[in-house]
Amino acid sequence: MSQQDQYIDQHRQAFQDALCEFLRIKSVSADSAYRSGIQQGAEWVASALQGLGLDTEVVATGGHPIVIAQSMKVPGRPTALVYGHYDVQPPDPLEEWTSPPFEPAIRNGNIFARGATDDKGQLLTHVLGAAAWKETVGDFPVQIKFVIEGEEEVGSKHLEALIAERREQLACDCIVISDMSQFAPGQPAITYGLRGIAYYELRLSGPRQDLHSGTFGGGVTNPANTLAALLAGMVDDQGRIQVPSFYDDVVPVSDDERRRLRDLAFDEAAFAARIGVSGVSGEQGFSTLERRWIRPSFDVNGMWGGYQGEGAKTVLPARAGAKFSLRLVPDQQPAVITQRLGDWLAARIPPGIQMELQDHHGSPAVVVPLDSPYIRAASRAIEHGFGRLPVMIREGGSIPIVGMLAEQLEADTLLLGWGQNDDNMHSPNEKFSLADFHRGIHSSARLWKELAEC
Amino acid sequence: MSQQDQYIDQHRQAFQDALCEFLRIKSVSADSAYRSGIQQGAEWVASALQGLGLDTEVVATGGHPIVIAQSMKVPGRPTALVYGHYDVQPPDPLEEWTSPPFEPAIRNGNIFARGATDDKGQLLTHVLGAAAWKETVGDFPVQIKFVIEGEEEVGSKHLEALIAERREQLACDCIVISDMSQFAPGQPAITYGLRGIAYYELRLSGPRQDLHSGTFGGGVTNPANTLAALLAGMVDDQGRIQVPSFYDDVVPVSDDERRRLRDLAFDEAAFAARIGVSGVSGEQGFSTLERRWIRPSFDVNGMWGGYQGEGAKTVLPARAGAKFSLRLVPDQQPAVITQRLGDWLAARIPPGIQMELQDHHGSPAVVVPLDSPYIRAASRAIEHGFGRLPVMIREGGSIPIVGMLAEQLEADTLLLGWGQNDDNMHSPNEKFSLADFHRGIHSSARLWKELAEC
Repeated sequence: MSQQDQYIDQHRQAFQDALCEFLRIKSVSADSAYRSGIQQGAEWVASALQGLGLDTEVVATGGHPIVIAQSMKVPGRPTALVYGHYDVQPPDPLEEWTSPPFEPAIRNGNIFARGATDDKGQLLTHVLGAAAWKETVGDFPVQIKFVIEGEEEVGSKHLEALIAERREQLACDCIVISDMSQFAPGQPAITYGLRGIAYYELRLSGPRQDLHSGTFGGGVTNPANTLAALLAGMVDDQGRIQVPSFYDDVVPVSDDERRRLRDLAFDEAAFAARIGVSGVSGEQGFSTLERRWIRPSFDVNGMWGGYQGEGAKTVLPARAGAKFSLRLVPDQQPAVITQRLGDWLAARIPPGIQMELQDHHGSPAVVVPLDSPYIRAASRAIEHGFGRLPVMIREGGSIPIVGMLAEQLEADTLLLGWGQNDDNMHSPNEKFSLADFHRGIHSSARLWKELAEC
Repeated sequence: MSQQDQYIDQHRQAFQDALCEFLRIKSVSADSAYRSGIQQGAEWVASALQGLGLDTEVVATGGHPIVIAQSMKVPGRPTALVYGHYDVQPPDPLEEWTSPPFEPAIRNGNIFARGATDDKGQLLTHVLGAAAWKETVGDFPVQIKFVIEGEEEVGSKHLEALIAERREQLACDCIVISDMSQFAPGQPAITYGLRGIAYYELRLSGPRQDLHSGTFGGGVTNPANTLAALLAGMVDDQGRIQVPSFYDDVVPVSDDERRRLRDLAFDEAAFAARIGVSGVSGEQGFSTLERRWIRPSFDVNGMWGGYQGEGAKTVLPARAGAKFSLRLVPDQQPAVITQRLGDWLAARIPPGIQMELQDHHGSPAVVVPLDSPYIRAASRAIEHGFGRLPVMIREGGSIPIVGMLAEQLEADTLLLGWGQNDDNMHSPNEKFSLADFHRGIHSSARLWKELAEC
């Protein structure tokens, strides 16, 4: 056992305390009511990185601050850049949390709090992995850089400009990101592919004000009926998305890759039981893993219209709306999809309805080559920290900045997830396994050494 | 000009003062804070009816009192029962009223107050029409009965039991109700048909809790996608409702009746402008009036699911729901529709979704035969009072008590609306034209004479 590993084991409680402190900060990026939490989140990260002896800066942006830090260049050795985010999803619905979202609580070896796994807990493993190295060995074996932003949950609006502006300062050979899950409990993974996303808000308006649904119903176009029709029309009964030319740019997945996905020990019954459903459905001709990882999808994320209160109100609503997203795969481009979608929806609007389509954010899918030396180094570090070689997986979610960072910095991306699939990211009772937190710190401390040998 | 008409013209100001006095009573039925206003309302009505020399009773119920009154039986002549309600809608939002809701104000020939048209002003015309007869001729030419309740705005919960209990006392040949609108300014109408209603709430649940729409999207059935599909599937692209056998019990409307509806001077452009839409849509093959009056319709009254807050949340919702209603026409029966709808929806639920369908309330449509002698009598009375023959119209809304009264008392219903479509029933700045109030009193006084000749 290395000095770093010993140090990490000895500081288990202190590291857990640091995590709790970080999780208590209400750094919700979507809602301006949490502005002071965002500021505190940035300052907490900056202070932790300064504690590593890194040259640290809190960069003001048009939105939330971005924290940048770096160690000294190590001649002849690669540079690793750690990306993470200190912002979190909104905590609602609050009533579904067992313990309050910003008061970390430990139950059954898990820490429960908003941001526990996404991304405070995971990002912190790299700060603490570096701390273990610094406190035991001293100088880092590779140059380490950190870019920790506060707008990941709202589309990373100001990150790209910063990266572009500081491309030399942030130059690196590989980008390390821990903001995802392992394949299963006890089975770590490296994620080599992410889906893209295009997220929209559709607002429909009809009559000037709510009307009596008896007096007017049937003779006046109902925005809520129209919304249902537009959303339902997005997919056919085979689960295929109906936006014109939607599949034109989809790169077919090789038989070899589909075979590899089939070889993963994915337990569909356990999956359904875990999320509490009696069955699943999706695009015809594809397995559940394929539907989630390699195929595009359409989901209504929110919808509203008319009377939502108790009892019956006979109203023909003046307005209705929805938030929805399309998950994208290589080589679909959000801007192209947005254009096609907007034109198509506009052509389907019935008389008496006005439509407004807002493009919230979008990013293309990313797939990393499996033969990168950095992926091999990360595999060894994970084997060290978790006691088992990682499997190579994809993920259905999008981390929009992954594609952008890889493109801007021309570096390979290492997506090293320490989370679990049932961590309730973006949901009530978000959690992170403290054992995985600890293993992640061990893996991270080892990663610097493995990367030095690349 | 008859004695009664002269009397009515001479007492114009006194009648208006009586209306103001009635309108100042805060008889809001929905809110228990107005309990004393309800009591005052019942007493005011009882006192006015006693003033006519009627045998009057204020009947206590489990809810708000019902006022019953009757004149002497007139041998060989029919009996007319006037139904009305002294309760009013809540006045909020108060800030949108130009003058306070319980301080009647006269502007441009209209009286503005909560209850002006719905139903105090309209119901009062029959009390005052009877008063004019009594003060000039003396005994009424027909027996007149009144049933004036205080719970119409909250579902008339205690009326049916009372009617059933006193069926003999309330026996009548025709029921007179003035609680609706004329066809247009200067064009009085008799409403001979009302649509029925079947109102439901559909709740869908999928995964145990909200999921990340990236990680799970495409592989897990989304309740909000499913809701959109179910609601959209309720009507086809011709606007026809898809519930199996839905049209089986629909009685075809005769060519003659459709021709009569076409002959009404319905100004679709003015209609669209008034509600603020640039066009309308609905069932193919039917006009806007037909769609609203003689055809069934489907409206989403409210819908919800997932994230409705600011910004973008990438969530696959655990639940989604909607309130929706079907407007019914003769001879569709709500209970039959409920059964067919429930079976049909249940069969369309995809794997991983649980459905709950709640039946909020239902009532069948009502159509009064146009060849009723009482309708002809009412037409002559209206022609006398308004100087113009009424047109025969239908109404798309439901008045559940109309069907109940007609069925319990086995009498024809005369729906004689003195209001206007823009009277802001249930809205701020409710109003009633004083000219229509005056014409209504003339018509009512004449009605007793015309009914005597049936």
